[in-house]
Amino acid sequence: MIVLFTDFGLAGPYTGQVKAVLQRLAPAVPVTDLFADAPMRNPRAASYLLAAYAPWFPLGSVFLAVVDPGVGGERPAVVLEADGRWYVGPGNGLFEILHRRAAASQVFEIVWRAATLSASFHGRDLFAPVAALIARGEAPPGEKRPTDFARRADWPDDLAEVVYVDHYGNAMTGLRAAMLPSDARLVAGHRRIDRARTFSGMPAGAALWYENSTGLAEIAVNMGRATDALGLAIGSAVAVVS
Amino acid sequence: MIVLFTDFGLAGPYTGQVKAVLQRLAPAVPVTDLFADAPMRNPRAASYLLAAYAPWFPLGSVFLAVVDPGVGGERPAVVLEADGRWYVGPGNGLFEILHRRAAASQVFEIVWRAATLSASFHGRDLFAPVAALIARGEAPPGEKRPTDFARRADWPDDLAEVVYVDHYGNAMTGLRAAMLPSDARLVAGHRRIDRARTFSGMPAGAALWYENSTGLAEIAVNMGRATDALGLAIGSAVAVVS
Amino acid sequence: MIVLFTDFGLAGPYTGQVKAVLQRLAPAVPVTDLFADAPMRNPRAASYLLAAYAPWFPLGSVFLAVVDPGVGGERPAVVLEADGRWYVGPGNGLFEILHRRAAASQVFEIVWRAATLSASFHGRDLFAPVAALIARGEAPPGEKRPTDFARRADWPDDLAEVVYVDHYGNAMTGLRAAMLPSDARLVAGHRRIDRARTFSGMPAGAALWYENSTGLAEIAVNMGRATDALGLAIGSAVAVVS
Repeated sequence: MIVLFTDFGLAGPYTGQVKAVLQRLAPAVPVTDLFADAPMRNPRAASYLLAAYAPWFPLGSVFLAVVDPGVGGERPAVVLEADGRWYVGPGNGLFEILHRRAAASQVFEIVWRAATLSASFHGRDLFAPVAALIARGEAPPGEKRPTDFARRADWPDDLAEVVYVDHYGNAMTGLRAAMLPSDARLVAGHRRIDRARTFSGMPAGAALWYENSTGLAEIAVNMGRATDALGLAIGSAVAVVS
Repeated sequence: MIVLFTDFGLAGPYTGQVKAVLQRLAPAVPVTDLFADAPMRNPRAASYLLAAYAPWFPLGSVFLAVVDPGVGGERPAVVLEADGRWYVGPGNGLFEILHRRAAASQVFEIVWRAATLSASFHGRDLFAPVAALIARGEAPPGEKRPTDFARRADWPDDLAEVVYVDHYGNAMTGLRAAMLPSDARLVAGHRRIDRARTFSGMPAGAALWYENSTGLAEIAVNMGRATDALGLAIGSAVAVVS
Repeated sequence: MIVLFTDFGLAGPYTGQVKAVLQRLAPAVPVTDLFADAPMRNPRAASYLLAAYAPWFPLGSVFLAVVDPGVGGERPAVVLEADGRWYVGPGNGLFEILHRRAAASQVFEIVWRAATLSASFHGRDLFAPVAALIARGEAPPGEKRPTDFARRADWPDDLAEVVYVDHYGNAMTGLRAAMLPSDARLVAGHRRIDRARTFSGMPAGAALWYENSTGLAEIAVNMGRATDALGLAIGSAVAVVS
């Protein structure tokens, strides 16, 4: 399975062109859209989001992950194998948290270049062909690098920020709920927010946080929009108190 | 065919994770996205919308339908078979109108539970596996219930409200056009609106209503946005006059 | 491969119903979403966008292209074969630029009508079945017309307007970059904009234009939104100066 994790946006031609490449090069491999709206031009926030969602997918999955504000510049193109899954994308920190949490990993720098490589769309011209190749079972077309290649050692293990806002106005943080004390409260938008197991039983309009279906601490307002009620967006700071 | 009808939103990881489950459990069954933006947290409006669209699909189709503000609470999980199509989702009224209009039906309460069942994402953990099972031709993993199980007898047969707003700013109502007098006018946003067969021939900016391609009465403004011109949104009241 | 190019919007049931038809009539043919947000009700702008993106797809691709404000009126339904690719949609100019740039072409008027043809959704009821037929290798169900059938000879070869705005706030124009002098500057939103090869190396907030990955001149602001910074939208005029 190839899994798409990008900031290409839902609209427009980018995801469609990437899928056309995958269809041509790996027609038998199913493709799943995970995020087309990963944190835009923000590989740091995206790194925590990707690390939360990736382990849910089957071993052998190939992630085509593109949050790449430096496309056309000097950042390397990389392949990470971590705990039996593959990740193809820019070497700008996007895979840092995955890499850090992996028990076993290896990293490659992609040295192959397409015959026609646009300056602005490596997702289509470089990363998609490489992902198709790996999904077909071939070796990554790159050179093995030491495990500290293109890393971001200064990033924290959990990120006390909003890293995603969903359709319901819920705000996912870069904090793993399992790493927080069971009675921890979060402070966001100048409000102290208690933990709850689920929405039901809470009064409408109440703010709460809970462990979401992927393990992240997520802030919500029952039958309302946490983003509006608390003034939250991707990048908003969150604090943990008890 | 499995058909998705949800309020998960277009963005974010929810539909992608559901599709990954379907791909794993029923890889040979094609999946169609019908609505990812069904009326949010509003199973009543969604019930009229789903009942309008479902009969267009082939017999044997399995609808994975999730508009589920009570997830994690006491509402049951159900499977409805109605006139040769299957519906899997929450027992909160979402299938009421389908059920009421069906000539033949049976209803099951889903008693199977996944080994790992999140509190907030039954679409992925409960309804998707059940839909995959049924699409593979297996029996629904539930117990048969009387036909008045989880019903909403107090809801009207047609709903005089806006139940969906599309990309063009057109407002679908929960009224079947065939149930209205041929000269009926609709009142919405303090305007009386005449019936027309189609857009062409109307002056730009004129408001009209017509039978849409699924049989619902739909309000539009030629070359404009009815939602903006008339101040309409999901839930706005509509009246029928002659 | 069938490629979808429409203004149906990302949301709602339209694309899903079209795909259900294609799945039923041509189940072995992969379907790619190129644009669901082509310029709304604007076949002229859409014509330049489609002509830029189509040649990137493999020979034999069938484009189901619907930007059709006159649906239900007098405009013909057409099939264009141009340089080995097929295009199915309304004869309202949407294929004008493709046709004009083609070395070899033939055009057909679709005379087949579905048993049940809605007045407002020819994408589902008329164009999708025809596209499926052609994708299966059958002859277009139409009558051959002279090459000046349903043309728009008065439209320019390149369009000095914004024809698409993407998720990053970049504004694509209807101008092919290869047709512009290498030192050309664009004027848009009362700003003179210099050409650049790529984003990297430009200061954050700087406006630039470049040849995008499809060959169009595209206006962007590094790490910002050109649409907001320059006040651009689909239809905004652009001028070329040196």
